[in-house]
Amino acid sequence: MTGNMVIAQSGGPSMVINQSLVGAVLAARASGKVGKILGARHGVAGILKEDFVDMRKPSVAKLEGVAQTPSAALGSVRKKPTGEECAKIFAVLKKHGVRYFFYIGGNDSAETVHIIGEAARAEGNDLRCFHIPKTIDNDLRGNDHTPGFGSAARFVAMAFMGDNLDNRALGGVKINVVMGRHAGFLTAASALARVHPGDGPHLIYLPERPFDVAAFCDDVHGVMKKTGRCVVAVSEGIADKDGTPIAARLSTNVERDSHGNVQLSGTGALGDVLAQEIKQRLGISRVRADTFGYLQRSFPGIASVRDAAEARAVGKVAVQLALGAKHASGSVAICRAPGKAYRITYRHQPLKDVAKETRHMPDSYIAPSGHDVTAAFLRYAKPLIGNLPPVCIM
Amino acid sequence: MTGNMVIAQSGGPSMVINQSLVGAVLAARASGKVGKILGARHGVAGILKEDFVDMRKPSVAKLEGVAQTPSAALGSVRKKPTGEECAKIFAVLKKHGVRYFFYIGGNDSAETVHIIGEAARAEGNDLRCFHIPKTIDNDLRGNDHTPGFGSAARFVAMAFMGDNLDNRALGGVKINVVMGRHAGFLTAASALARVHPGDGPHLIYLPERPFDVAAFCDDVHGVMKKTGRCVVAVSEGIADKDGTPIAARLSTNVERDSHGNVQLSGTGALGDVLAQEIKQRLGISRVRADTFGYLQRSFPGIASVRDAAEARAVGKVAVQLALGAKHASGSVAICRAPGKAYRITYRHQPLKDVAKETRHMPDSYIAPSGHDVTAAFLRYAKPLIGNLPPVCIM
Repeated sequence: MTGNMVIAQSGGPSMVINQSLVGAVLAARASGKVGKILGARHGVAGILKEDFVDMRKPSVAKLEGVAQTPSAALGSVRKKPTGEECAKIFAVLKKHGVRYFFYIGGNDSAETVHIIGEAARAEGNDLRCFHIPKTIDNDLRGNDHTPGFGSAARFVAMAFMGDNLDNRALGGVKINVVMGRHAGFLTAASALARVHPGDGPHLIYLPERPFDVAAFCDDVHGVMKKTGRCVVAVSEGIADKDGTPIAARLSTNVERDSHGNVQLSGTGALGDVLAQEIKQRLGISRVRADTFGYLQRSFPGIASVRDAAEARAVGKVAVQLALGAKHASGSVAICRAPGKAYRITYRHQPLKDVAKETRHMPDSYIAPSGHDVTAAFLRYAKPLIGNLPPVCIM
Repeated sequence: MTGNMVIAQSGGPSMVINQSLVGAVLAARASGKVGKILGARHGVAGILKEDFVDMRKPSVAKLEGVAQTPSAALGSVRKKPTGEECAKIFAVLKKHGVRYFFYIGGNDSAETVHIIGEAARAEGNDLRCFHIPKTIDNDLRGNDHTPGFGSAARFVAMAFMGDNLDNRALGGVKINVVMGRHAGFLTAASALARVHPGDGPHLIYLPERPFDVAAFCDDVHGVMKKTGRCVVAVSEGIADKDGTPIAARLSTNVERDSHGNVQLSGTGALGDVLAQEIKQRLGISRVRADTFGYLQRSFPGIASVRDAAEARAVGKVAVQLALGAKHASGSVAICRAPGKAYRITYRHQPLKDVAKETRHMPDSYIAPSGHDVTAAFLRYAKPLIGNLPPVCIM
């Protein structure tokens, strides 16, 4: 049965979110079962405004260029629509004869797709609603890993490789703040930067473990005594034992969003207050902090080849599922087969299993000390980021 | 006349400073005129401690690996030796039978080399003292450009390409703080990120022009009114009309070094206070700031191919000059021939012409508005950074 299609992008961009867009659009174009293919600008905001781009028009060459470009080509949105807005979105989709709806994003996007799908079902409308997974945080349930994570992790690993060499040349304490509000996967990826004995990061702090400022200073003191230098990876989401973000506890000047969440990205506050604590408590003069910021999700030209290919594939698989007879809605999960060789499959996942709650680093990936990762994490993450540039020391 | 050689690295690392090291070492090894080749660890600090590495030992393959690795492989130092220490350095060089001394660094390093050379001359000692230029700030006098700049500029251009796409997807104001205390070349390189009409950075603030917070807010307001989004490049070294760094004026919590210089790198303070001003004065909710930090000089795998080749060449040319009959001391300057095609020559430059004072962006590279660069700057900088990854928008 033919029908029109709408596709849109949501949430924080990634280096490979356009691969998923292009994967879905090319699969739809090749299928012969889809009429109009409409790209909505800025996610659900574009659907509400009926701001659509004709995705049949661009040449394959143009789309291949878009696929390799970081950030959301259709524009993105931070909006989680209300129930009323979901009903309005469904009305717009009906008006445009849409039978296939695809939304690329994280767990909030999956929930939006789920609500719209339920509204369609309640009316007996056969709208096919599919979520295409994307998040650099790697925190979607039911997935071995998420498209976007491998490339962001590759940036973080490369950044720590270079910064470790910089710290090796000049000494002192260097703190680098990495994205990830609740899940520590991306901060943990800093450990992939270690090549030679003694390489940093020497300490890794994840949001999965309570952060204690005094213990942190002791840890840094211990590394400095042993090696004379110290590179630290800190998740922006670290919080104390009561769950209060350290960024909010130590800094007097934090911004909160409408949900009361402290602004973590796009500010250097956390790194600066941690550096200040180390200076004051340990009396070390050369303490520096960098916050990697948005470069982690948008730096061009360094995406993980495997991540790019998988992001392309989940877009294609979502369209195949939507065109098939088995599922009226769902998401695509990446599952990894056990064993040494890296082998994955793409599976249908019910929307309710990916919406709402997110997942965290499992205990088996976090060292007993609480400030490092395990060999199991390294085995897990290494295949996702691809080859790193060689570095050679004297 | 044969003799031993000492080589060392100084100041902030770069992505290609090891190319200069390897260029000099391989030229010395091939010359047949140099005895021992000693690499001093951590610059002059290593010479004072007689902490040397035998640079005849590593294989060519190993040295080629080192050449492609960012940051100073021998270690670096922030120390500018006193006159007394220079005398002691000269004594150590004599003790080790050193006839050739090479110091890779910026203008302070050139001055150190100059002082040591003068001490040798005063004793009638024929020590050959050569400076090998390196600085990502691109601020050495008598040079068209400096090894290290092209690669740092390539990082900055790539970072702004990605960040512009991120801002295009989500809107709002994004401020990125770029290295460079006195010279704006690196911040200006952000303009190389512009590919499509409307691309950011939309505003570029350089230390060569006084920074006025009210005017800055007006500029941002103007861009927001026109395009609904705004990407800003700000040099860490921006100062008001009295020369007071903005970082010191707006932030209550700044660190100063022993010379009274405000700490600019390794902190997110400047970006955060500028974001705060925009939020408060313009009432814009989505304002974010990132400080690129040390990644600008140490990120692996993305060096400019031309910059790497030129860094290699200046090391080699320094050795050729030192082994020649014409000059007892000097530095190597990169000079560009006029005309459309990119052609450079390496010339001998007296140490006193490169030591002490630094150079700034010429007026012809700064737009009359004071917050952009000119086409002349783009023509100047483009050949230095090499090809950028393609980006394609919809």
